Amino acid sequence: MKILLPDTMPLDPTLPEGWEAVVVDARAEIPAAHHDAAALVVWGSSRRHLASAAVDLPQLRLVQSLAAGVEGILAAGFADDVVVATGAGLHSRTVSEHALAVLLALVRRLPEAREAQERHEWSDELGGLQPLHPEGRLTTLLGARVLIWGFGSIGQTLAPMLQGLGAQVRGAARSAGTRAGVEVIAEADVPAALPGTDVLVNILPATERTAGIVGREVLAALPDHAILVNVGRGATVDQVALREALEAGTLGAAGLDVTEPEPLPSGDPLWDAPRLLITPHGAGGRPVGADERIAANLRALVEGGEVLHPAAR
Amino acid sequence: MKILLPDTMPLDPTLPEGWEAVVVDARAEIPAAHHDAAALVVWGSSRRHLASAAVDLPQLRLVQSLAAGVEGILAAGFADDVVVATGAGLHSRTVSEHALAVLLALVRRLPEAREAQERHEWSDELGGLQPLHPEGRLTTLLGARVLIWGFGSIGQTLAPMLQGLGAQVRGAARSAGTRAGVEVIAEADVPAALPGTDVLVNILPATERTAGIVGREVLAALPDHAILVNVGRGATVDQVALREALEAGTLGAAGLDVTEPEPLPSGDPLWDAPRLLITPHGAGGRPVGADERIAANLRALVEGGEVLHPAAR
Repeated sequence: MKILLPDTMPLDPTLPEGWEAVVVDARAEIPAAHHDAAALVVWGSSRRHLASAAVDLPQLRLVQSLAAGVEGILAAGFADDVVVATGAGLHSRTVSEHALAVLLALVRRLPEAREAQERHEWSDELGGLQPLHPEGRLTTLLGARVLIWGFGSIGQTLAPMLQGLGAQVRGAARSAGTRAGVEVIAEADVPAALPGTDVLVNILPATERTAGIVGREVLAALPDHAILVNVGRGATVDQVALREALEAGTLGAAGLDVTEPEPLPSGDPLWDAPRLLITPHGAGGRPVGADERIAANLRALVEGGEVLHPAAR
Repeated sequence: MKILLPDTMPLDPTLPEGWEAVVVDARAEIPAAHHDAAALVVWGSSRRHLASAAVDLPQLRLVQSLAAGVEGILAAGFADDVVVATGAGLHSRTVSEHALAVLLALVRRLPEAREAQERHEWSDELGGLQPLHPEGRLTTLLGARVLIWGFGSIGQTLAPMLQGLGAQVRGAARSAGTRAGVEVIAEADVPAALPGTDVLVNILPATERTAGIVGREVLAALPDHAILVNVGRGATVDQVALREALEAGTLGAAGLDVTEPEPLPSGDPLWDAPRLLITPHGAGGRPVGADERIAANLRALVEGGEVLHPAAR
């Protein structure tokens, strides 16, 4: 049996007995020599590659994505009996790290420190004796009330990092409960929770329901010192409302790793919003544990076990 | 009995029976009405204030500093029977948070993202598909080998934060061993450890022994991709050697919260060194748990218990 690996990252999964791995160009059609493949790993693969795979691989049984979202794969039209597995969880550690980096940079006012450095200025405002919790400004995560909206694998990885820094962390998801030891409130209760939120971390997926959900009302309900971090999807934030809140001073700061659209056009006024840090969708993009995930799902396929993170078809 | 509190931060310690607290101007001489004080809390206090306290308070038994360093207090010439207690540990959480913020900003290339943002540029180099561990560059703390040189209260607070992000953390101190569950190597073994160090966090105090200790040899022994963070004392780093290493590309990046001297003169070429982030001694400056420390040491004084963190006299 044959599994096709993309040439977009180094992979070396442990294969079941009798399997061989072949690296193929993830931007091109599948070469005829490999039309006998039973499994395909997808990472940075082109639409053309996916379309070819959907049509040219009659023995295909598993498509393993290394990305969390598989919209493009599902759109390629694979046969119904092909299992499509998402890469859910493979980006939790890197995206959490980035979210923490952006949040801490805003809390510790590193962009302002950098600007002072460019002026060769030792800013008294940013150093020396300071109150721990100054009026109208969040300057530490110690005691900060953090709400992580979209509390899946990334949120559950980020939560203990924030707790380790002394933050009080809650999640928000479709249903309330306790997940990974963290209190999770129902989305219906988010509006009531926002006035008591110092940091809103948005890790929501892009769906019809979440389009622009972080809009004028949500931003107005947050305290003026609150910080918004979005490492989910750009479409979940109303960027005009965000810019206006930053300009009006009714939001403390924001960090966006995702925008709508991407790339953000160079003429978009969002680039120049005050107290906003934009990173170009760099939070994830480097799956961690891909070999183990591929190996586990191949094994499940061969042994008839349960495939991890199958996509709903 | 009377304790004098400085007006430089809000304090409300629980006092033993029969004690009263009076807030005094920490920049001025002690008013005659309070020359009966038995305890004095020091935070941002002027030399004049300390000199007055040393001379004018015959009943003084305890000087409680909220700073880790008490050189200024000892220099004021308090009588030998006055206990001077340092604020060791009160800055561990804030300094750790700042060290992590600066380190993550450098790892996640936030200064470069900010520059791209100023150009309205969605940088392909900083986003999209990336290798987890690219050649010649540290872009994640996952698996990073961190050495914390000076492994006291701050280092022991920082270590679990870094471990939570997937880093392999070791400490370096005068004697080897295991502290707070972390392997600590002896300072004599630091040179041998440097080639296998991705991140060097410097939390050394300023002493004769540590002056310029992070100099040409140490910087040369680190890999070219290594990141240096200094939240200890500026005098421990040879700033000329640091600038030259950054300019030559033999050091990946550096973050300094402390310099020698402070403020760093505006004409110092260090301001413009590449891949260097300077913050103006803003890591700490806001004691956490000051009320509890004051209360505990007053109680120890009254009950004849052990004063926490007495300074060596």
